Amino acid sequence: MNAIEIIERKRDGRALSAAEIGFFVTGYMTGEIPDYQAAAWLMAIYLQGMDPDEILALTLAMANSGETMAPDDAAATRVDKHSSGGIGDKTTLVVLPLVAACGVPVAKMSGRGLSTFGGTIDKLESIPGLRTDLSRTAFETQLRDHGIVLSGQSIDLAPADGRFYALRDVTATVPSKALIASSIMSKKIAAGAQGIVLDVKYGSGAFMPDRDSARELAEIMVEIGRGAGRRVTALLSDTNQPLGLTVGNALEVREAIETLQGDGPRDLTEHSLAVAGHMLRLAGRTEADDLSDARPRLEDSLSSGAALAVLRKLVELQGGDAGMIDDPEKLPRAPVVQMVPSPAAGYVRRIDALEVGRACLALGAGRMRKGEPIDHAVGVVLARQVGDRVERDEPLFTVHARDRADASAAVEQIGNAFEWSEDSVRPAPPEVLLG
Amino acid sequence: MNAIEIIERKRDGRALSAAEIGFFVTGYMTGEIPDYQAAAWLMAIYLQGMDPDEILALTLAMANSGETMAPDDAAATRVDKHSSGGIGDKTTLVVLPLVAACGVPVAKMSGRGLSTFGGTIDKLESIPGLRTDLSRTAFETQLRDHGIVLSGQSIDLAPADGRFYALRDVTATVPSKALIASSIMSKKIAAGAQGIVLDVKYGSGAFMPDRDSARELAEIMVEIGRGAGRRVTALLSDTNQPLGLTVGNALEVREAIETLQGDGPRDLTEHSLAVAGHMLRLAGRTEADDLSDARPRLEDSLSSGAALAVLRKLVELQGGDAGMIDDPEKLPRAPVVQMVPSPAAGYVRRIDALEVGRACLALGAGRMRKGEPIDHAVGVVLARQVGDRVERDEPLFTVHARDRADASAAVEQIGNAFEWSEDSVRPAPPEVLLG
Repeated sequence: MNAIEIIERKRDGRALSAAEIGFFVTGYMTGEIPDYQAAAWLMAIYLQGMDPDEILALTLAMANSGETMAPDDAAATRVDKHSSGGIGDKTTLVVLPLVAACGVPVAKMSGRGLSTFGGTIDKLESIPGLRTDLSRTAFETQLRDHGIVLSGQSIDLAPADGRFYALRDVTATVPSKALIASSIMSKKIAAGAQGIVLDVKYGSGAFMPDRDSARELAEIMVEIGRGAGRRVTALLSDTNQPLGLTVGNALEVREAIETLQGDGPRDLTEHSLAVAGHMLRLAGRTEADDLSDARPRLEDSLSSGAALAVLRKLVELQGGDAGMIDDPEKLPRAPVVQMVPSPAAGYVRRIDALEVGRACLALGAGRMRKGEPIDHAVGVVLARQVGDRVERDEPLFTVHARDRADASAAVEQIGNAFEWSEDSVRPAPPEVLLG
Repeated sequence: MNAIEIIERKRDGRALSAAEIGFFVTGYMTGEIPDYQAAAWLMAIYLQGMDPDEILALTLAMANSGETMAPDDAAATRVDKHSSGGIGDKTTLVVLPLVAACGVPVAKMSGRGLSTFGGTIDKLESIPGLRTDLSRTAFETQLRDHGIVLSGQSIDLAPADGRFYALRDVTATVPSKALIASSIMSKKIAAGAQGIVLDVKYGSGAFMPDRDSARELAEIMVEIGRGAGRRVTALLSDTNQPLGLTVGNALEVREAIETLQGDGPRDLTEHSLAVAGHMLRLAGRTEADDLSDARPRLEDSLSSGAALAVLRKLVELQGGDAGMIDDPEKLPRAPVVQMVPSPAAGYVRRIDALEVGRACLALGAGRMRKGEPIDHAVGVVLARQVGDRVERDEPLFTVHARDRADASAAVEQIGNAFEWSEDSVRPAPPEVLLG
């Protein structure tokens, strides 16, 4: 077996055996297979695809490239969620406290935004003092004692995935369904997750351009889960607008707090209840196979304040200023806040999420380059969502910026992201794939 | 313009502009574009192909990556030939003296066998003392004063081609027609050739598996020539057997000498006359557009001994023992010479060239790894060719080996390369594409 023959087989559209895939992944990790051979292989996979057996083999080879958690391991995540990323996606900040409040321990290692838009870790770091670089021991202890932990990469799970991802990023081989699915699933499987809820977005600003691609990606991941003996449920949702009303790190934390208080926007609340409900179901904490008995319990934990108390505890445990949860006005605030009135009357038909994301990136809410610092305070708060009626001169959105020049640019760009309709509009309902 | 976007365009099957291709080739040469991006790009080209404009742009970008010869340059090769390589191909050793004897100066920089089978330079080095590492000045002087020179890489032509080739070799991206054609043509164009005769082989042991692929490759190269303002003629021939009766370096030199004496095998003689005739035509030394007036002049230079005298002069000028041309018995000889009789009576239908080549490689006539020394004396001499009738126990071939064990293995393997027929067989005629 040698690397060139394996590249050649895939180049010619033939299926690789699990042994061949394992040989390649291991060889790449030991350095015996250089970057240029891996790059040629990835491009061949991109263009020729992989069948379900190959994708499973690649996933398992990457999952096994570092430490792996058994389900009974102190650091294991029994039930996990993954979001394929969307503009304004603060679901993790709402869902983890909700699920923990229902008695299911949740541990999550989350990424910083790889580049561009902020990730969950960036959002959480809006709270001064909060540590997201927990050691493995601290991670395990907090999970065991308090049932909730949210940190950066405390354990180097599936290191092969990290190395392949970095190479894909610079060789135009990122948007391959086989490679995306195996990348996501390898980390979840290595983390020991027995149940995984996948939150797959499609449309503007999402990884997948349309519902069919998103469904195909979700089906591949459900299939990997089946092959690896894990239960996977996928939720498909349209990014015809940002999720919730806010985009920007501290603004999103504030919205997560409001949602846990029962005062969140309807789309974010519904989406969080669905993700959390499926996590309870996969954790074996529901009787019904739908969400009929999960839903009342989750709603209770919102109205009782139990879920919010868990978020407060999480912040406190990780050294953050919990007073900011009690009074979100204390979160970092931008010096310039500019309200923008609606230029016309009508129904909001669509808000281009990618354009809103780009405007917030330009405001400083994300990164142009890896490792850049970000400004937690800046961003946008929408006053209207898709389907809402707005009259001329009523508030449409508010920009939070470092200075007037930045604000003006964002006002223009976000204004252009709105599409209008004379008739009322109903957003597309989400779709669920039960694995 | 950046490398990732260019890879992405090609990955998606879109055509690249000449500027994009130039940017990539230049970036790779300066080191700004690393091997792994070039590898991904090459695989994308392999799988998505290139249109004629792209192939021309790639050829010219590689041709211009180092020194280029103008037609009036002292080192320029006005009329050149290229063989895509075949087992037993000693055409260059016959054709160059033939053409020079007709008054057309010929200069050739030839490769050592990249690996496996010996190249023209290896064959020539069968003659002790002969130098093939001429400096640029020595190359130019000999060409000007004597009208013939045959050396290794005296001038670093099209260095980008060399670098891309080395990368293709280890990333399973060699057998792409776009990449093969641009590689071959970039060196010829950089060398200043105004007329180029391409000798394209197909079948066992050749680069191209069948006549259709060979014709497609030839057409691409003719098209590149048209775009670059060069005249190109392609000869397509089947490798249904080795070219001539010998395979092995000194044995092939000997056969070249016999052919220049008018005593060569018919296939090698005809092929050499055709290649040389087209070279005279492209050099503007013939009246007719076919070979009707070239042929008698070439035959004269064989029968008069003029062509052989040119080979003798070439050997002398480059420090070789010209006495070996006068008496080929003095060429290196293997200690074990084993004649193999025919196991049956019949007509020879096919002699698998690749199998014969492999047997000679195992005897030591080629290289398993780059840089390995080779044994000039070993090889095989066939007694019969395709179409010949042979009776049982008549001589079929003779193996020249270092020892009895080597000889036995070769006898077995070469014996298996013969295919038989009860009826007479006519070899496929060659095809000519006039550019």
